[in-house]
Amino acid sequence: MLHRFISQEPFELENGIVLPSLEIAYHTYGEKNVDGTNVVWVCHALTANAEVMAWWPGVVDDAAAIDPAKHFIVCANILGSCYGSSGPLSNDPHTGEPYYADFPQVTIRDMVKAHILLRKHLEIDSIALCMGGSMGGYQAIEWALMEPEIIGRIFLIATSATESAWGIAIHEAQRLAIEADGSWKEKHPSAGAKGLKAARAIGMLTYRNYTAMVRQQQDMDSEKIDNYRAASYISYQGDKLVKRFNAQSYWLLTKSMDSHHIARRRGGDVVKVLQAITQPTLIIGITSDLLCPLEEQQRMAASIPGATFIGIDSMYGHDGFLVEWKQVSQHLAEWMVRS
Amino acid sequence: MLHRFISQEPFELENGIVLPSLEIAYHTYGEKNVDGTNVVWVCHALTANAEVMAWWPGVVDDAAAIDPAKHFIVCANILGSCYGSSGPLSNDPHTGEPYYADFPQVTIRDMVKAHILLRKHLEIDSIALCMGGSMGGYQAIEWALMEPEIIGRIFLIATSATESAWGIAIHEAQRLAIEADGSWKEKHPSAGAKGLKAARAIGMLTYRNYTAMVRQQQDMDSEKIDNYRAASYISYQGDKLVKRFNAQSYWLLTKSMDSHHIARRRGGDVVKVLQAITQPTLIIGITSDLLCPLEEQQRMAASIPGATFIGIDSMYGHDGFLVEWKQVSQHLAEWMVRS
Repeated sequence: MLHRFISQEPFELENGIVLPSLEIAYHTYGEKNVDGTNVVWVCHALTANAEVMAWWPGVVDDAAAIDPAKHFIVCANILGSCYGSSGPLSNDPHTGEPYYADFPQVTIRDMVKAHILLRKHLEIDSIALCMGGSMGGYQAIEWALMEPEIIGRIFLIATSATESAWGIAIHEAQRLAIEADGSWKEKHPSAGAKGLKAARAIGMLTYRNYTAMVRQQQDMDSEKIDNYRAASYISYQGDKLVKRFNAQSYWLLTKSMDSHHIARRRGGDVVKVLQAITQPTLIIGITSDLLCPLEEQQRMAASIPGATFIGIDSMYGHDGFLVEWKQVSQHLAEWMVRS
Repeated sequence: MLHRFISQEPFELENGIVLPSLEIAYHTYGEKNVDGTNVVWVCHALTANAEVMAWWPGVVDDAAAIDPAKHFIVCANILGSCYGSSGPLSNDPHTGEPYYADFPQVTIRDMVKAHILLRKHLEIDSIALCMGGSMGGYQAIEWALMEPEIIGRIFLIATSATESAWGIAIHEAQRLAIEADGSWKEKHPSAGAKGLKAARAIGMLTYRNYTAMVRQQQDMDSEKIDNYRAASYISYQGDKLVKRFNAQSYWLLTKSMDSHHIARRRGGDVVKVLQAITQPTLIIGITSDLLCPLEEQQRMAASIPGATFIGIDSMYGHDGFLVEWKQVSQHLAEWMVRS
């Protein structure tokens, strides 16, 4: 069930801007046990939401590694998103109108700071496992550093310790596509819809790769000179996102990803910060991941003292963290028993 | 020197549409020898132009593999482009105004058909070497099949025998970015400029890769939360193209690339068509090429009877065909002596 938590306290963002209040939409599954040792917090990626059993089936699922019959599972919509937490579609109390493109920039740390407010509200003193893929991993690793006494273990997949120049370049292309849509700063929820469609299309390229696209979308008809399957597929994926997401949130959240850097205000040395992570950590990388390449996962695993690294051989690229749910769930379940 | 060739004959495109006349901008370097055996025709890629000594220095250059002191070098601006050949910025004789977004769709074969008109105009009966990288290679391989008696040898680099579903998906994302710009169908040369900027940004991602971006554009300042170098770089590359290119041409030429399929109206079997190529062929692939991966080059080389394959180890991805000019020129020069 989707819940709403409203904090009436002022919430200061990393850039110094203060939100007068904060709303967090979240979902819980299962029951917290008596000693509170079964909490699993799942952090979601760019366009997902709090409904983790819907978007990560097979991993957070009945009889999967993360199982509501065993775990008390929490997933909160991230700050800046458009699935119920404070973001561009929320009302700005100063104007009484939604913020739209004027919502202030938020960092990954701001998102975790909001998660922590919710954690306290839910009276959770201990998170047995904090996990996330892609941008969800950005939050999980930040949280492990922000509250080492609360977070027991972390599971990271297809993610990184800092946003790469490559990731930032991709996000800038996505923002340019949104900005190309002259409507994107207009004050209504469908502002920038065409730009968002193009931005999602760019994203799809980076979530997959050459092999996946050729195997699944290559035309068999050698005679055509237009209307190719791969073009329809990409366009369709763009349209699908436009129906469920907001361009201003998308623009904002790509900026949040760019800001991801675990060594910011922690001395600047990523390796040293990784070495200070005390939690047992499972890191899974996908061999064909174009966006967060395997080498980034290996680099994290090489520096985190209690890290276990597993590479999954998959043709699905970055999307492998969702598509390869069977392997992911199995590795995660085994590691949870061992670690 | 840039020349103009105007054909007043109707020019029928592959889709059946007839252009009432045709203009081709071209550049020649060097002198044709007495027996006409020193002609090298260079086909250019998406946003290049007829000035091959400007955009492929070190390969087509004084004392390089292709040398105006030895070769008669021809490079013609492709049909649909905006560097002087018929395209969106040309006048539509029916209206007296430029075509803009109404210029009809052209295929790679249409481009080669236009090149052939120019070849005849220049009284060239034999092309010792026809060469091109990326979309230039699309034209070169088509031409080898369209005029096997004229084309003596071909050199292909970072290209393919058919557009891949991956390439089409990328082009569709680029077109969606242009279409997101509400001005793109307006009737002036800078229509769709913001969309073009975003489309070029997408292109830049596919011309490079993770490694090149991280090595060259990673920020060293761990404390910042905005204004990253990689974002500035991508934005700057977009702005640079906008100053020299037209969004309508860009949109159109991505469609032309999508249509590339050497087996169309040749039986549909790419391998069989490759096996029928009679010319000695040099194929160079770049190990880190995301757009036209090495495997595509290897696949072509495996089927063309007279093919020599060379893989160049480079971190520059697809752009390696331009950046690695030293290796390219050396391999090409050696092959020309041997073959």
